[in-house]
Amino acid sequence: MTSTTVVRRPVPPPQPVIAVDAMGGDHAPREIVSGAVQAVREHGLRLLLVGRGPELAPLVAAEGASRELPIVHAEETLAMHEGALAAWRRARSSVAVACKLIRQGEAAALVSAGSTGGVVATSTVRLRTLPGVLRPALALVLPTRPKPTILLDAGANADAKPEMLMQFAHLGAAYARIGHGIAEPRVGILTIGSEPGKGNRLARKAAELLSAHAEEARLDFRGNIEGHDLLAGLVDVVVTDGFTGNVALKSVEGAVRFAFGEIREALTSSPMAKAGALLQRKALRELGERLDSESYGGAVLLGLNGTVVIAHGDSHARGVTGACLLARDLAAGRITDQIRRGVAGLSRTPTWLHRLGQSED
Amino acid sequence: MTSTTVVRRPVPPPQPVIAVDAMGGDHAPREIVSGAVQAVREHGLRLLLVGRGPELAPLVAAEGASRELPIVHAEETLAMHEGALAAWRRARSSVAVACKLIRQGEAAALVSAGSTGGVVATSTVRLRTLPGVLRPALALVLPTRPKPTILLDAGANADAKPEMLMQFAHLGAAYARIGHGIAEPRVGILTIGSEPGKGNRLARKAAELLSAHAEEARLDFRGNIEGHDLLAGLVDVVVTDGFTGNVALKSVEGAVRFAFGEIREALTSSPMAKAGALLQRKALRELGERLDSESYGGAVLLGLNGTVVIAHGDSHARGVTGACLLARDLAAGRITDQIRRGVAGLSRTPTWLHRLGQSED
Repeated sequence: MTSTTVVRRPVPPPQPVIAVDAMGGDHAPREIVSGAVQAVREHGLRLLLVGRGPELAPLVAAEGASRELPIVHAEETLAMHEGALAAWRRARSSVAVACKLIRQGEAAALVSAGSTGGVVATSTVRLRTLPGVLRPALALVLPTRPKPTILLDAGANADAKPEMLMQFAHLGAAYARIGHGIAEPRVGILTIGSEPGKGNRLARKAAELLSAHAEEARLDFRGNIEGHDLLAGLVDVVVTDGFTGNVALKSVEGAVRFAFGEIREALTSSPMAKAGALLQRKALRELGERLDSESYGGAVLLGLNGTVVIAHGDSHARGVTGACLLARDLAAGRITDQIRRGVAGLSRTPTWLHRLGQSED
Repeated sequence: MTSTTVVRRPVPPPQPVIAVDAMGGDHAPREIVSGAVQAVREHGLRLLLVGRGPELAPLVAAEGASRELPIVHAEETLAMHEGALAAWRRARSSVAVACKLIRQGEAAALVSAGSTGGVVATSTVRLRTLPGVLRPALALVLPTRPKPTILLDAGANADAKPEMLMQFAHLGAAYARIGHGIAEPRVGILTIGSEPGKGNRLARKAAELLSAHAEEARLDFRGNIEGHDLLAGLVDVVVTDGFTGNVALKSVEGAVRFAFGEIREALTSSPMAKAGALLQRKALRELGERLDSESYGGAVLLGLNGTVVIAHGDSHARGVTGACLLARDLAAGRITDQIRRGVAGLSRTPTWLHRLGQSED
């Protein structure tokens, strides 16, 4: 008897194309172009650079990347101070053109370091939500260890409904799996009080829905999470409405900054302490950098027909490259399909919910 | 011509009587009794100790304070794990009896280190809100410098209405004036986004009401405050609903703890850094203590017919003495009258609002 071994060569998945908004961000377009070039050269990504052609062409040429990095012209630019209204005002912005590339199937994802409000509004209007998804949610990563914690919604929906929060759990779980390699994400809901039944009406109702649907929807729902647990790593995904999420994230950001300021002062309050601080300069600087880049490095808008990664506004080249890699991973992992399936798993939710989703589109 | 000089001796205001719940708190009754004795001896306060007589009498006698510190017997005790339901379950709890003393005019304020949920619920039910006040609010103090910042509501009302938030502004301003000596408190509303019109429906509507009524009600309303500004000292009073306030406070608490943990690790990550940490031990310990006691030392429930100070559950004698002093200051400053007047200043608000207040009592 002879045995036949079938050797299967792993077929590399097709590299998805990422549209990069070259005009958004405090250091645009120079640092964006530079980060995009690095993403192409060092990581083999396929990118389209979107923005004002006459401005971008010389920059790309200067990097000797005119062949590897095609430019798609966009007339207008979303200014960093422009919020949601820009979505309607600037129909030919680089973000709007990037969305068009996604709609036409020429790109799978969008990376922008532009104003969060402007990018969220433009891509929500232009890409629209996935079938069955009521609203997109903005997901941010908190610097817990060993794995990060994902919080959503970080501000896309100031007023949410319990059914939206239930869906956010699926958006967040898909992001944790594909974007951060967390095989079975534990999901919690941000509220006040640790026992079931605590919180405001929205959180209580959402917790009920999640408890009822968790098993059927294969979601590891762990119940209530309180504010002081946000950085404790108790769960991988924290679900909340965009108002509470934004307040909580900014409170964390402000408190970390405050604690560092107070500590800096304490460390230089006496000659003895000052001497100590000198010995620790390196350790403290490294910590500062880790908290900075990891916690507020970027956000992902989930639930649309296309992946949207919003890099931090003050991103330099390295941050842009990182955002492009995240966008590639999410697109290659077909996050939109995963979300679609996750939300379909909830579709024994009454039909009025779907109607609601459509009417609110 | 002879001039007559009328010498007016300042008449000391009558010392209000404070009812102290001797049974609430992790270290009750021993540390409560000890803190109460100090308040009487060192600060000349007039206190009534409320709790189980047979247990308290020997403790008071051991301190040689049987004459200065009368005991009012209360059969039952709110356990630390008991929440809001205890208000109805334990009709003869030490907190309930203390409220009765206030209602009967035998005490002006209540101090308890018991469970926040239990004390809030019991005193809300038993003291009832001041005329025209829709709901009481829990005020907490954040350790900003040079003056503290007051945040309310920290969790008494998970679901609030815009009109309640407008009233909270007055409760907080009165507390800032009388409790913390801030003559003209600046008031902000916690929301997302710095421009007017940002936030969820509740915050937007409350900000509108506050803007419209600020001048007439003599309130220095400064508009929107974001999460990262909570510890920045931009305003003296931050108004929000109890859900958002509780999440924000706990997020701050968790983030400060997280930052300290990370810094401790960074400070001991190398022999060099470790040597530095030794030199700074004292400075860091002092800072830790300041943040701890100042930020979470206690809370005040405002808007009821009587002042309620809720000391931290793990208060030792010194914390109890501090809470008694705060209660005395608030009662002596007639905070309830100030709140009544402040809210009356809003009373061109439609009558349905007052009806709402009564029906929801």
